[in-house]
Amino acid sequence: MDKEAYLISRLNSKYVGDDAAIIGNTLYSMDAFFEDTHFKREWMSMSQIGRKAMLINLSDAVAMNAYPKYALVTVSLPKELSITEIDELMQSMEQTAGEYGCEIIGGDTIGGEKLHLSITIVSESKNPLLRKGLKEGDLLAFTGTLGESKRDLDILLEGGRVDPGSRFYEPVLRADFVYKARPFLRVGMDISDGLYCDTNKLLDMNEYGFDILDNISDDVGFSGEEYEMLVGFKKEHLSTLEAIARETDTPLNVFAEVVRNDERFPCKSHHFL
Amino acid sequence: MDKEAYLISRLNSKYVGDDAAIIGNTLYSMDAFFEDTHFKREWMSMSQIGRKAMLINLSDAVAMNAYPKYALVTVSLPKELSITEIDELMQSMEQTAGEYGCEIIGGDTIGGEKLHLSITIVSESKNPLLRKGLKEGDLLAFTGTLGESKRDLDILLEGGRVDPGSRFYEPVLRADFVYKARPFLRVGMDISDGLYCDTNKLLDMNEYGFDILDNISDDVGFSGEEYEMLVGFKKEHLSTLEAIARETDTPLNVFAEVVRNDERFPCKSHHFL
Repeated sequence: MDKEAYLISRLNSKYVGDDAAIIGNTLYSMDAFFEDTHFKREWMSMSQIGRKAMLINLSDAVAMNAYPKYALVTVSLPKELSITEIDELMQSMEQTAGEYGCEIIGGDTIGGEKLHLSITIVSESKNPLLRKGLKEGDLLAFTGTLGESKRDLDILLEGGRVDPGSRFYEPVLRADFVYKARPFLRVGMDISDGLYCDTNKLLDMNEYGFDILDNISDDVGFSGEEYEMLVGFKKEHLSTLEAIARETDTPLNVFAEVVRNDERFPCKSHHFL
Repeated sequence: MDKEAYLISRLNSKYVGDDAAIIGNTLYSMDAFFEDTHFKREWMSMSQIGRKAMLINLSDAVAMNAYPKYALVTVSLPKELSITEIDELMQSMEQTAGEYGCEIIGGDTIGGEKLHLSITIVSESKNPLLRKGLKEGDLLAFTGTLGESKRDLDILLEGGRVDPGSRFYEPVLRADFVYKARPFLRVGMDISDGLYCDTNKLLDMNEYGFDILDNISDDVGFSGEEYEMLVGFKKEHLSTLEAIARETDTPLNVFAEVVRNDERFPCKSHHFL
């Protein structure tokens, strides 16, 4: 959405551009998970909502090779939610944060018509993985299998049901891979707007284009909210990264080489509102 | 609202209870400013919305004797907002944060039906002012003149207009007073839910009651979102604090003495939804 991009660019600070702002060794990131923008309440249990809200926030830290430490959570609570539902939501967020060593330390709660969650993550990294730094000849790769998130979102939008283990409900963060691979990566980011759009962002920021090495279907390229990793690295590190990928059980798909051209993928908003 | 209080209590962390969570010398706080919960869009310009959203967030830090450093801002943007309006909103938030030495370093922007703002403030304090620590015989006082915020909210709710300088639009933070008075204060918090409710919170937390020294009208006691300070201090510091109050142009109103009883004020939610 153009106005969103405009507002983000208006945050004319030297820290904006990556998933998180970096101050010393501390990273700060913030992501919204809003009803009717990111999810419909009838699609998900409270526990699934809490878990996904927390995972997509933890992803910002993990994708930058940072260790999540603290979370702040602001919740707008619809009146009709029961105490049991609120418990489910909170427990799920606490449990999910805890799996990544992160503690919820505060936040705000207000009454509202919709269930909106805003989360801030404070994380630490001695060597954050940024979006800037690609060089000519680098390889671009993504982790995992893309496409399921969009496919399942489309099914839900048409009133269907999807498997509870779907990536749409339960993104898989590649923490082990990122932490081990960091020394061999030039750039990286999580795939939230789809591989096409996010690759374009990376290329725009680094002022390069690409030669395709492995064709990507639109079902893969347009699938947003995957939270798999998009990474760029020096060709000579390919075999090391492939070994780390095997070791951490992470599919690694090399799909392009960075070159000096203006090549871009088609990109359109993946939000359903 | 009971469910809000419940959810806040469910954030069962050792850090929750004050306006901000404290980790070392760093304080983290987060407040929502949501359309139709905290304001109606027809009541305020974009610039007023941005300013109040930032001020109520800075207030959490200032009220704890902390210096705001960084802000993260998540905005849900209705489609009908123009680029000019977005500019006004952002400029106003940046300018207001800047007045308190605080920089917006990141955040998130999404499309939504309503204009909702969530802000996180990272602040620093070597000697944070907490809510816990009251002793028998301490005095309770509030700063400024209370009542205007509720009076003007009532006028707006009835379709009337209020002065652009109203406290409802433009809370006055007592930064100078707090920073200078800190060594002589036992406890403190900003008045967001009204003097009655916030005094009760302070007393609940400290397990004391009070003797009234100066009668408070319901117009004053029930007025929420004032962002004046509620403080408690040792009797012998009264004259020092009165001097600091004069020096910083801060009306200081002593209204109660802390005693061992169960006295509480009447308390009801001040939100209009």
